[in-house]
Amino acid sequence: MPTWLLPENIADVLPSEARKIEELRRATLDNFQLYGYELVMPPMLEYVESLLTGAGQDMDLRMFKLVDQLSGRTLGIRADMTTQVARIDAHLLNRASVTRLCYAGSVLHTRPSGFHATREPYQIGAEIYGHAGLEADAEIQELALATLALAGFPSVRLDLCHAGVLRALIENDPKAAKAEAQLFELLQAKDIPGLRELTAGFNVVTREALLALPNLYGDVETIERARLRLPKLAGVTAALDELQALIKLAGAASITIDLADLRGYHYHSGVMFAAYVPGLPNAVARGGRYDHVGEAFGRARPATGFSMDLRELSRLMPVADRKAAIRAPWGQEAALRGKIAELRRAGEVVIQSLPGHENDQDEFRFDRTLVNENGIWTLKNLG
Amino acid sequence: MPTWLLPENIADVLPSEARKIEELRRATLDNFQLYGYELVMPPMLEYVESLLTGAGQDMDLRMFKLVDQLSGRTLGIRADMTTQVARIDAHLLNRASVTRLCYAGSVLHTRPSGFHATREPYQIGAEIYGHAGLEADAEIQELALATLALAGFPSVRLDLCHAGVLRALIENDPKAAKAEAQLFELLQAKDIPGLRELTAGFNVVTREALLALPNLYGDVETIERARLRLPKLAGVTAALDELQALIKLAGAASITIDLADLRGYHYHSGVMFAAYVPGLPNAVARGGRYDHVGEAFGRARPATGFSMDLRELSRLMPVADRKAAIRAPWGQEAALRGKIAELRRAGEVVIQSLPGHENDQDEFRFDRTLVNENGIWTLKNLG
Repeated sequence: MPTWLLPENIADVLPSEARKIEELRRATLDNFQLYGYELVMPPMLEYVESLLTGAGQDMDLRMFKLVDQLSGRTLGIRADMTTQVARIDAHLLNRASVTRLCYAGSVLHTRPSGFHATREPYQIGAEIYGHAGLEADAEIQELALATLALAGFPSVRLDLCHAGVLRALIENDPKAAKAEAQLFELLQAKDIPGLRELTAGFNVVTREALLALPNLYGDVETIERARLRLPKLAGVTAALDELQALIKLAGAASITIDLADLRGYHYHSGVMFAAYVPGLPNAVARGGRYDHVGEAFGRARPATGFSMDLRELSRLMPVADRKAAIRAPWGQEAALRGKIAELRRAGEVVIQSLPGHENDQDEFRFDRTLVNENGIWTLKNLG
Repeated sequence: MPTWLLPENIADVLPSEARKIEELRRATLDNFQLYGYELVMPPMLEYVESLLTGAGQDMDLRMFKLVDQLSGRTLGIRADMTTQVARIDAHLLNRASVTRLCYAGSVLHTRPSGFHATREPYQIGAEIYGHAGLEADAEIQELALATLALAGFPSVRLDLCHAGVLRALIENDPKAAKAEAQLFELLQAKDIPGLRELTAGFNVVTREALLALPNLYGDVETIERARLRLPKLAGVTAALDELQALIKLAGAASITIDLADLRGYHYHSGVMFAAYVPGLPNAVARGGRYDHVGEAFGRARPATGFSMDLRELSRLMPVADRKAAIRAPWGQEAALRGKIAELRRAGEVVIQSLPGHENDQDEFRFDRTLVNENGIWTLKNLG
């Protein structure tokens, strides 16, 4: 096989695309900072036990693993950064006050999530620790929408769900509890025949509720339908109340409900959301509450946050115009070097043609050139 | 073992350090752009054969490997990004003209290069492809110095070497050629007794030259000493001529020569340099010419470049002051939200206190607060 071949679903990012990703990365982190989110950089690899804390089997299968030569223990390459940031909050920063953190970096997946999906998403996200109220969830949702607006998507649909609904149904029926992993998969796939089969031996109330879940999607009225269709368990009611309260806090966004959209259910503990933009069938950002993850790191801290993949998002953005450049001759003459330095300090892109390459067809758009007129280096417009 | 424990020589980067790294990363990439270097993002993992193209055994040992579930082949986690960028130039961009590329990202090492060294450097660098002349090497050295100046190091020492010296000596003596890997290690360590032992059976000219190399360091006069001590092989003379010519192009930097400083010798083909700053015994940036790497990817392109580790460099930099922030109450009122949005648009960090956390001791330095005075949201200075 040729050495230049890359593994499947792994790709280089070339200049025009890299520029878009870099610009969106900066704009997003700058915006996070304006809301008070501090940047942290968790490592690319950790002990597998740490990375899998609070995560489900799904994450285990998606994580690349290798052996640490220094300890002989198994390391994982991060497949998600959320639990890493929860560890930093719980153990390393150890603050009593509300802590807002953000991050950006590559994560790796053993298998792509879809045929064309990358195995190396560039994950960027923000998390709040230390506040259990819905106000924190509302701030995270606002920030997700603000980030998508920066990427050029002013109209976003937020799809809300709540991990508490399924959890309450399961806690109420030991048979359902045993089949939790399967139930989760069937609900995700909205596989009604599969659900019918699996729930055949469950008690009737649980069964009807589970079969109703895949149809409990649509506009915000769905919450009222859910109150009628689902059993009046305390956990179910609390979850639906929270969703209703959050809709009031969410402001102007277009909101839909999908009580079976449980991606991330394994570590989420409360409200969950997915953001959709025109032109892409998959969610571009996902988030939600995951209060118990910090506990596994030795310190119970309420937590809520969101993340998105900048690579996928940037594909939807138009190619940014490249700044026009100045072509300069090569030379060591002090006056030339001084003039070039001065132009660069003023923010101009100045490219020196290396000897013999003066007539190269470059990829750059040169609109000016530096010429020596009577001993003075002067800018001249190019046709 | 507790789940929050990280592997040896692997660390989180906390906010104050992350801020420094992020600022230096941006300033460096922006400066690269002013010189016409285009950003590319090679992947974190590739087939091992690609990553090891042109690299030595040293790189093989430093690289984490794992099995690709999709192909069953062995993947490597990148331990260096230079050959990846050479692959992009040779195969993917496939331009005839001079191409300037830059990159930034994490690389991983199986073993640290020193007791306190990280196994996850944050590598940033720039490369020129398509020009074999020393002008390209001079531009790369200028760019390395400019980058270190951005990091707050105006006085840098550049230590020059040339891969051609050892290569010419070895080509001239079959016994030396067989012992190339050992010779390289002993020269790196300046291990004279070891060299004496290994070179005992070599021809006298080669032996004396190899034993002289570890002492051929010092100011630029070293080149003249080398001309006297080393045999007049065409390759040796050409290498020394190139060093002399490069010194003339290098301008104002403080330059030293060390003909045994061969780190990176395995893929370098011409001049090599290391940059040192006060306060750190190890080089902070390394670079040089590696003309044959592109060839291995199917297209011979002259190449020269440099890279450095932003994590190590940022440790030497003072902690940047954090911008003062504005404390705002939580609330959904339109006038309050409008005022906060307006302040953020103007670049102010505005942090809303979540309900119940109004008196938290935050890590932020709040110098103003937003208060409602007679129905109007107004900024008030804090004591």
